[in-house]
Amino acid sequence: MPDSLLATLFPDASFLPVNDKLYVAAREHLDRLTKPVGSLGELERVATRLYAINGGRTPIRVDPALLYIVAGDHGIAARDVSPYPQAITRRMAANFLEGGAASNVICRASRIHHRMIDAGCAGEPFAPHPLLLDRRLGSGTADITLGPAMSVATCEGGLRAGFALSLEAAQNGYALLATGEIGIANSSSAAALFCALLGLKPEDAVGPGAGAPPAMIARKTEMIHKALEANAQAIESGNPVRILAAVGGFELVILAGLMLGCASQRLPFVVDGYICASAYAAARALFAPISDYAFFSHQPAEPGFARAFEKLAPLQTPLLNLAMRLGEGTGAALAIPILRSAAAIYNEMATFETAARNAERGK
Amino acid sequence: MPDSLLATLFPDASFLPVNDKLYVAAREHLDRLTKPVGSLGELERVATRLYAINGGRTPIRVDPALLYIVAGDHGIAARDVSPYPQAITRRMAANFLEGGAASNVICRASRIHHRMIDAGCAGEPFAPHPLLLDRRLGSGTADITLGPAMSVATCEGGLRAGFALSLEAAQNGYALLATGEIGIANSSSAAALFCALLGLKPEDAVGPGAGAPPAMIARKTEMIHKALEANAQAIESGNPVRILAAVGGFELVILAGLMLGCASQRLPFVVDGYICASAYAAARALFAPISDYAFFSHQPAEPGFARAFEKLAPLQTPLLNLAMRLGEGTGAALAIPILRSAAAIYNEMATFETAARNAERGK
Repeated sequence: MPDSLLATLFPDASFLPVNDKLYVAAREHLDRLTKPVGSLGELERVATRLYAINGGRTPIRVDPALLYIVAGDHGIAARDVSPYPQAITRRMAANFLEGGAASNVICRASRIHHRMIDAGCAGEPFAPHPLLLDRRLGSGTADITLGPAMSVATCEGGLRAGFALSLEAAQNGYALLATGEIGIANSSSAAALFCALLGLKPEDAVGPGAGAPPAMIARKTEMIHKALEANAQAIESGNPVRILAAVGGFELVILAGLMLGCASQRLPFVVDGYICASAYAAARALFAPISDYAFFSHQPAEPGFARAFEKLAPLQTPLLNLAMRLGEGTGAALAIPILRSAAAIYNEMATFETAARNAERGK
Repeated sequence: MPDSLLATLFPDASFLPVNDKLYVAAREHLDRLTKPVGSLGELERVATRLYAINGGRTPIRVDPALLYIVAGDHGIAARDVSPYPQAITRRMAANFLEGGAASNVICRASRIHHRMIDAGCAGEPFAPHPLLLDRRLGSGTADITLGPAMSVATCEGGLRAGFALSLEAAQNGYALLATGEIGIANSSSAAALFCALLGLKPEDAVGPGAGAPPAMIARKTEMIHKALEANAQAIESGNPVRILAAVGGFELVILAGLMLGCASQRLPFVVDGYICASAYAAARALFAPISDYAFFSHQPAEPGFARAFEKLAPLQTPLLNLAMRLGEGTGAALAIPILRSAAAIYNEMATFETAARNAERGK
């Protein structure tokens, strides 16, 4: 079903895994470089994958890189599942547009372009801003403890809108996309998605998010149980689009679309933390080989991440483990210099042959 | 004894821990920034430490950053403890000077200045080169399985030479130093140093290094036992300079001097992997609060690292874990963007107060 779903959603797009022969070719190149075989560890694995994603063309490019931070509001915020009120989503978004958020700072420090997508913050649309793209799917989702977050049609529209943004980014010359999110209570929606898509139990998926104390975590867990019950029919259908519409969020839909767009465009993309991983879970349910294009930036502090990750990306390792739990794409932005170094290793290091020739010449 | 040793070695220098009141001040600032308290995890810890090292002055600078790769040869290389012959040290050094080594590539990708210090490669001095500093303490150390690597006077001279290089770097405006090394068989000297300084057993300290197979690891372990016996008197003296002279290496001495120079200049420095950590162990034996100035870049693949690290830096966590085992400062160079982002977070993020003011203004 996912295959025909993909074709229905994106009739003009093609979705292919990477050519896995290219992994072998990359390995051979890396083994000719002036270092003991395999001595650059994960960096070599990243380089190998980037080469394959890039279709075997060199130099491997990861710049310019673009971080899309997608913002949206969640009806479940009314259920006291977050220490912050819903209005904070707008505050965070505004702070990003002003350039004062953590992700702006890290992006500037690491030369990463960054834009915000309003996928559906509560209230009025934001005033136009050069860092802002309006892709509003509504004014906050409905409360998932009572029924679906949004209609299936809205979800499909959001997936297509996210997909189109990746195409645009590729056309604009971006070589790497990174994902981030803003949205009070979206760790609840993410937990519900992990339960619905991966079969996690709410008790295993739910954690403190942005800082919920234990009593709030207990309530949050109960609310996820309620959301799964209220949306049992959609979940039992096994249809990832219906599931995403049922317990997802506007920013999660756009993010899943972005990731599918990257896979279709053969663009590598970086998944931020717990929330973005739930959007990835939805995208992967639609196109399993999307894993070929995905890099997991960091192991966030949220305890449910490790449990979801085991099922979601059993062959991968998050690049960083800095006990972070902010979101906003901060982990993705921090991981990009590692991808950049991996690409540079592939592109620029001397081989034993050239080094020997230089040594000969230098005599 | 270490205190008077320090004063004898560096009579004009002052060595002080950081003012730990500044940690509290840094924490207060970080808690005012627009993010949940502590949500940037290790990044906040790095920022706190950089602020304190910087004496509470803002903005915190980590750029320009300089990576010193120190190269030296080891007499123990003749004992078949490495899969590579001693001549490879020169080849690696030459490859670095040509710009084709992994560390050149990563430094270029991350805008890190880099220089090589010849601390004593076997054979003739290198021809002059803009990336090269000649601080030769000899033409390869003596075989530590037979007696001391070098004289105490040579070791003292090397510590002072390394120390002077940090002073020079500080005068030239560098805000951060990173350490790296090149030297066939230097994982043997490092293992011997960990045993002599931290009381590790050779069996726990020795590992594959650049890629020794099991039989070679067994021989390497036996050789470390021999080296510890041959230098028992120096080791039992407990005098870190005598121990470093006995079982160290020229690059390790220069590196220990560099690190002490950083502490004296209040410059933060980044320790690369297993080998650089052994130089750090010597520096720390001379001045314990040097830990205030040290950042550990990564957990290398070498299994002895974790055992040494427990004793060496019980309060720290290496920033990266990418299963690397190349050396050459590659881990240190990869970690610098994280320090840069931590500093930028401290310097540039909006506080709740300024964000609220902006929100007010934007209404």
